[in-house]
Amino acid sequence: MSEKRNLTMLMDFYELTMSNGYFVKGLKDIMVVFDMFYRSNPDGAGFAICAGLEQLVDYIEHMEFTDEDVAYLRSREMFDEGFLDYLRHFRFTGTIEAIPEGTVVYPGTPLVTVTAPLIEAQLVETMLLLTVNHQTLIATKANRICRAAAPATIMEFGARRAQGADAAVNGARAAYIGGVDATATVLADQMFGVKAVGTMAHSWVQFFPTEFEAFKAYAEVYPDSCTLLIDTYDILESGVVNAIRTAKEVLEPMGKRLKGVRIDSGDLAYFSKKLRKELDDAGLTDCQIVVSNSVDEYLINSLNIQEARIDSYGVGERLITSKSDPVFGGVYKLVAVKQPDGTYEPRIKISENPEKVTNPGKKTLWRIYNKETGFGYADLLTLSDEEIDGETPFAFVDPQKPWKQMAFTNVMVERVQKTIYQDGKLVYQLPTLEEIREHVNKQLKYTVWEEEQRFENPHVHYVDLSKKLYDLKEDLLNKKER
Amino acid sequence: MSEKRNLTMLMDFYELTMSNGYFVKGLKDIMVVFDMFYRSNPDGAGFAICAGLEQLVDYIEHMEFTDEDVAYLRSREMFDEGFLDYLRHFRFTGTIEAIPEGTVVYPGTPLVTVTAPLIEAQLVETMLLLTVNHQTLIATKANRICRAAAPATIMEFGARRAQGADAAVNGARAAYIGGVDATATVLADQMFGVKAVGTMAHSWVQFFPTEFEAFKAYAEVYPDSCTLLIDTYDILESGVVNAIRTAKEVLEPMGKRLKGVRIDSGDLAYFSKKLRKELDDAGLTDCQIVVSNSVDEYLINSLNIQEARIDSYGVGERLITSKSDPVFGGVYKLVAVKQPDGTYEPRIKISENPEKVTNPGKKTLWRIYNKETGFGYADLLTLSDEEIDGETPFAFVDPQKPWKQMAFTNVMVERVQKTIYQDGKLVYQLPTLEEIREHVNKQLKYTVWEEEQRFENPHVHYVDLSKKLYDLKEDLLNKKER
Repeated sequence: MSEKRNLTMLMDFYELTMSNGYFVKGLKDIMVVFDMFYRSNPDGAGFAICAGLEQLVDYIEHMEFTDEDVAYLRSREMFDEGFLDYLRHFRFTGTIEAIPEGTVVYPGTPLVTVTAPLIEAQLVETMLLLTVNHQTLIATKANRICRAAAPATIMEFGARRAQGADAAVNGARAAYIGGVDATATVLADQMFGVKAVGTMAHSWVQFFPTEFEAFKAYAEVYPDSCTLLIDTYDILESGVVNAIRTAKEVLEPMGKRLKGVRIDSGDLAYFSKKLRKELDDAGLTDCQIVVSNSVDEYLINSLNIQEARIDSYGVGERLITSKSDPVFGGVYKLVAVKQPDGTYEPRIKISENPEKVTNPGKKTLWRIYNKETGFGYADLLTLSDEEIDGETPFAFVDPQKPWKQMAFTNVMVERVQKTIYQDGKLVYQLPTLEEIREHVNKQLKYTVWEEEQRFENPHVHYVDLSKKLYDLKEDLLNKKER
Repeated sequence: MSEKRNLTMLMDFYELTMSNGYFVKGLKDIMVVFDMFYRSNPDGAGFAICAGLEQLVDYIEHMEFTDEDVAYLRSREMFDEGFLDYLRHFRFTGTIEAIPEGTVVYPGTPLVTVTAPLIEAQLVETMLLLTVNHQTLIATKANRICRAAAPATIMEFGARRAQGADAAVNGARAAYIGGVDATATVLADQMFGVKAVGTMAHSWVQFFPTEFEAFKAYAEVYPDSCTLLIDTYDILESGVVNAIRTAKEVLEPMGKRLKGVRIDSGDLAYFSKKLRKELDDAGLTDCQIVVSNSVDEYLINSLNIQEARIDSYGVGERLITSKSDPVFGGVYKLVAVKQPDGTYEPRIKISENPEKVTNPGKKTLWRIYNKETGFGYADLLTLSDEEIDGETPFAFVDPQKPWKQMAFTNVMVERVQKTIYQDGKLVYQLPTLEEIREHVNKQLKYTVWEEEQRFENPHVHYVDLSKKLYDLKEDLLNKKER
């Protein structure tokens, strides 16, 4: 079982140079607000499924700069001794609001908002981004693959091609949030309760003198869960023949059934149809066909069109690395600084790249739903001193089409972020993995438009700004003095 | 600092079902040989740079199934008590031969060969693949980026977009093997000595009332290593103006120089040339231009063609995930089984996909070099009872063109694999990271043809089979009985 690790020092060096700078300049305790948000959905999708909050909480709960860490930093000969002493006694005292795991999210909305003393908000940046970016990427990808495959089920088989051990284990967790049925990774079961499954590799078949002997030995040891890998030599000439013989000669005399056959190569559409027929003709209509081999949602969609007969997919590298789009580009930006009078002054980052301009200020994220259908209309960003109730008309601006102002009335309104930490105290009851998974299912069934779930040219969810926020942003963009 | 973790249970469930099966059937101690190899180079490259062996050794040294692990497995109600007891006392007793880290490698050659009791060889599969696949992927990608950029240097900035914590830390290690100068990830410096660097984020600039005040404060704290991020508001109107002012008004009075400016957005070719001129005109000819923003070898090649004036690149997500090709597809296949008479019987895996057919038998991998130039000619696979000396004519077959038989004489011959474990004992002196890095440099300078280092249509390195091995493979492929 995995032991605790101290990942405190997994941060970008600039967080330490900046923090030391703030310390030296006497600025470290000024309260600030940072938003973590992202700019576009992977794979051109209509949404993402956010994940990773539990591991962020785990990081913050265990942040500790040890004597060894401080000694390393001292050896770099650029940090103030007072700063090093501060680190040795570091404790996070800020407030974190975040969108719960498993929530459908959209570009430009803050997934996590940190309100904290400047130095603390800075020091949590890298792990906050790393954790949420990684798991959101994988949960989103897994969900796409599962939606393409349904009612066929998905097993996550990617550990061997994962980008490191955490990618395998936390990736299996995220994949489960996204909807996979099971994982191959034992440690993910042990740590998170993602059921681990598996049967045999080609090596089992190769080890025995003949394929039938290999199948027979396996069926004898595992009569209740016998899925046979049938493509080591020749799927149709040898694999399925020996599998059927095993069902008849080994399992049936024990009163057992052959649970499945798996192929890991070849033309999956052609072979799955051929296999279905062979198995049915042999009376093995309940024997499942499992396939693996560079599967993702694109291949599954193509197999569906070809009417492949597949009951379950083992999905490896293309899920665990999100191969077709392996980066979730979340960023963490300063949006407000508390002033001596107690108000938060908004801050903006401008850029040559328009999509890199930030939404300034301390804000609230709302999601509004159609009262009759329950489907989500739009996400709305207001400044934090604005309230909307869904009844009183309230003007919003679509920042892509600023001439278009909307007033939403007669809608249900929900605050999307929950308070996770309040003044350094964890106040959020972390949901179980099953609850997170159920949350995903419910949204996709009841609140997310089908048009947003489409793989090709999905409907783009509205993320509108309140008139007040929009005007503030325009003012800051047009400000000349820097 | 990072503490020890127990990753023993990071394995595919099928390793446990197979191992339990071998245990129950009394087969667990039969000696077998597994080869780990890969089928194609990422990004269509001419070679890969292998890495990750140190972490594989670390895994094997610390493999331990704890009481907690065994209790979890027992709860699955499918494992024999004798097997669980065996696991509780597990120790790796086999022999591992592997290609040293930092070696240029080619598809179809065994990077790692495990000769061990069947059950042991099976249980190390996942972590062996995960570790070598991940680090080889990143070392290879980093090397491509560094070769494209030279003489400009590369800093690895990817932690926030890495696929989990190990991807960030071990990724930084692999990137250093591949040639990057430094990393942003502090923990990678602390654990592996990959120098961590960094200056400021946009938040530093946004925090202060004006950009100049932000630059001034930074220069005062870090006069000796002052690189300023100049794209928070407007690169040319504001950023470079304030940077030059900081150089003149803050640094020069202290007798210090502005070390660099960094931009993270915009048209990098255009701005780098403009900036070079502005800085030179201000007498800051020694001020470096650092860029970041979705950089990889493809963008760098394009910037080179445009004669961009860039001294150093910060490379993030496209390196740390190997975004353009994020999977290194190493596999682990059974190639031989020891017989009662002491000989190793070869095993093959056939497949509908010809590239998935394995090279059978216990083998030796040789690399031959031109005696005059020192450049590597070809990799040669022989059966392990064959010896070549580079002088005696010896027939080889190119498996892609089997009609073409070659006999190499008057060449230097090297065994590419080294013995890492001998009968369970670590007998290999792990090189330092600096030694591995130097090994990479030397090969690219002295032994790897330029034509193989090309980005477009590189020369395909020959990987030929001895006549005896080729004939054996043909025999096994044509065998009918399974």
